[in-house]
Amino acid sequence: MESIRIIDIVGTAAFSIAGASAAMEKKLDVFGVFIIAFITALGGGTLRDVLVGEVPIRWLSDLSSGVIVLLSTIATIFFKTVIKDYHNILLFFDSIGLGFFTVVGIQTGISLDLHPVGCIALGTITACFGGVIRDISLSNIPLIFEKEIYATTSIFGGLVFFLLMKMGAPKMLFEVTCLVSIVVFRLLAVKFHWQLPTIWKSEKL
Amino acid sequence: MESIRIIDIVGTAAFSIAGASAAMEKKLDVFGVFIIAFITALGGGTLRDVLVGEVPIRWLSDLSSGVIVLLSTIATIFFKTVIKDYHNILLFFDSIGLGFFTVVGIQTGISLDLHPVGCIALGTITACFGGVIRDISLSNIPLIFEKEIYATTSIFGGLVFFLLMKMGAPKMLFEVTCLVSIVVFRLLAVKFHWQLPTIWKSEKL
Amino acid sequence: MESIRIIDIVGTAAFSIAGASAAMEKKLDVFGVFIIAFITALGGGTLRDVLVGEVPIRWLSDLSSGVIVLLSTIATIFFKTVIKDYHNILLFFDSIGLGFFTVVGIQTGISLDLHPVGCIALGTITACFGGVIRDISLSNIPLIFEKEIYATTSIFGGLVFFLLMKMGAPKMLFEVTCLVSIVVFRLLAVKFHWQLPTIWKSEKL
Repeated sequence: MESIRIIDIVGTAAFSIAGASAAMEKKLDVFGVFIIAFITALGGGTLRDVLVGEVPIRWLSDLSSGVIVLLSTIATIFFKTVIKDYHNILLFFDSIGLGFFTVVGIQTGISLDLHPVGCIALGTITACFGGVIRDISLSNIPLIFEKEIYATTSIFGGLVFFLLMKMGAPKMLFEVTCLVSIVVFRLLAVKFHWQLPTIWKSEKL
Repeated sequence: MESIRIIDIVGTAAFSIAGASAAMEKKLDVFGVFIIAFITALGGGTLRDVLVGEVPIRWLSDLSSGVIVLLSTIATIFFKTVIKDYHNILLFFDSIGLGFFTVVGIQTGISLDLHPVGCIALGTITACFGGVIRDISLSNIPLIFEKEIYATTSIFGGLVFFLLMKMGAPKMLFEVTCLVSIVVFRLLAVKFHWQLPTIWKSEKL
Repeated sequence: MESIRIIDIVGTAAFSIAGASAAMEKKLDVFGVFIIAFITALGGGTLRDVLVGEVPIRWLSDLSSGVIVLLSTIATIFFKTVIKDYHNILLFFDSIGLGFFTVVGIQTGISLDLHPVGCIALGTITACFGGVIRDISLSNIPLIFEKEIYATTSIFGGLVFFLLMKMGAPKMLFEVTCLVSIVVFRLLAVKFHWQLPTIWKSEKL
């Protein structure tokens, strides 16, 4: 991992905006908003790097990630006076981040020669766990464990990734297709309330 | 750590069943049930491996743990239509997992030449922290911090382990005795409501 | 990191007392009080060491930290019968711990040749995250994310540290000034209810 890449930048910015929006909805102070944006954007990647032993963590020595989070947070606070609709902003940027970071995580797995299942696990961890840590920090039930399809979208994108790869598609194509399919799938899932089955739903417990 | 061992398999399966039962009680969807089972079964061992620097984490490259969690989750969902009594299932399998994973954690400590206190700490972390992460994820107060004796059981088992070891008992004997004493102690503790003292109990705060 | 230093001892003892007080207020049993004291005192340093790859974690092989936590916990439980005012005890020792551990974290960053921003980040992580993990474990909203100035104090102290360092002050001077300014700033912030701005405060959400 030499220098920061476009894909990291977009994912980091998108999750920072989503995180800052969530924190503002909870009326945290400006520092709290920044910290939550940071956790949302870099938490998943940090957990991934700790699990694969890629330490010291890059954001301690390379300040570019922190700068992106800072600028995104400032932009979110600034535009908040213009745009009122937190919920849809959060959803949109969260979906973008989900797509980009799934690809980043899968790439890490491939660079470690992991089995596709391990790669998809890393993609899902990278994409989802920043949000989980954010939700736990804000005392919300993690979005990932609620009914809405979320982590499943990331896994679905990972399957698309490896399917196209096995079919011999060029790298650019299966990365972009993975990313786009995640964003589209996520937005559709929310719009049409797609849910995974809970076969024990009907019972009283 | 070459290949997965019987003791890991039983502990993983037991904690997966306990975790899946807890997740079903919260009416999560099928994917959420699997993730919570996974966190319960592998969270403690993952924290242990991160703390001792045994990375990349084994379950990223060795899929056998994930397969055990998957099969246990499917079995739990399937048998749920037959057995209604979640609470006792959770308790029973949780106790089994507690016993097996305490032994696994202590063994890790011994292989690192740690002091018995460090070994028992690793045993307790391995056995208890999957459940802590599960409870925090489900927005429950972690079981370990409630009145019921839990982590103490793991420590008690660790003391039995080293006591028999110092007395020169054969390896098989003190491992099995540690394991059995934990399961029995835990079940008795729940049945008879054993509690550690809270000397500040009587006060109003 | 050869043997434990005065600065670690004071920080560990202070955070243990703060953690034990918080746990007693929640009426945990004696073991729970010890665990929460341990998490509060060693959680931040553990996260720091995991992030920079300083593993196996020192407290697994060097039992001195654990002994300090144990003695501090026993002292807190004992004095609890004499002193009733948990809240101010918690505040005072928490401020002491905040100061000492900020300095410890910054020193770790300097020893790794990190940029001052990275050093201050490590100082803040070391000083604040034990408390965050404690609060999450006790199902409290983390203090750090509430309105009260907290992590900001740690960052402020870090700025003092590097300002004096750049000005060529002797090591002892900027370490002590950093520490004292954090404790004083924190106590003043609580006494006079200093808050960071929440520009979105006026709105109804």
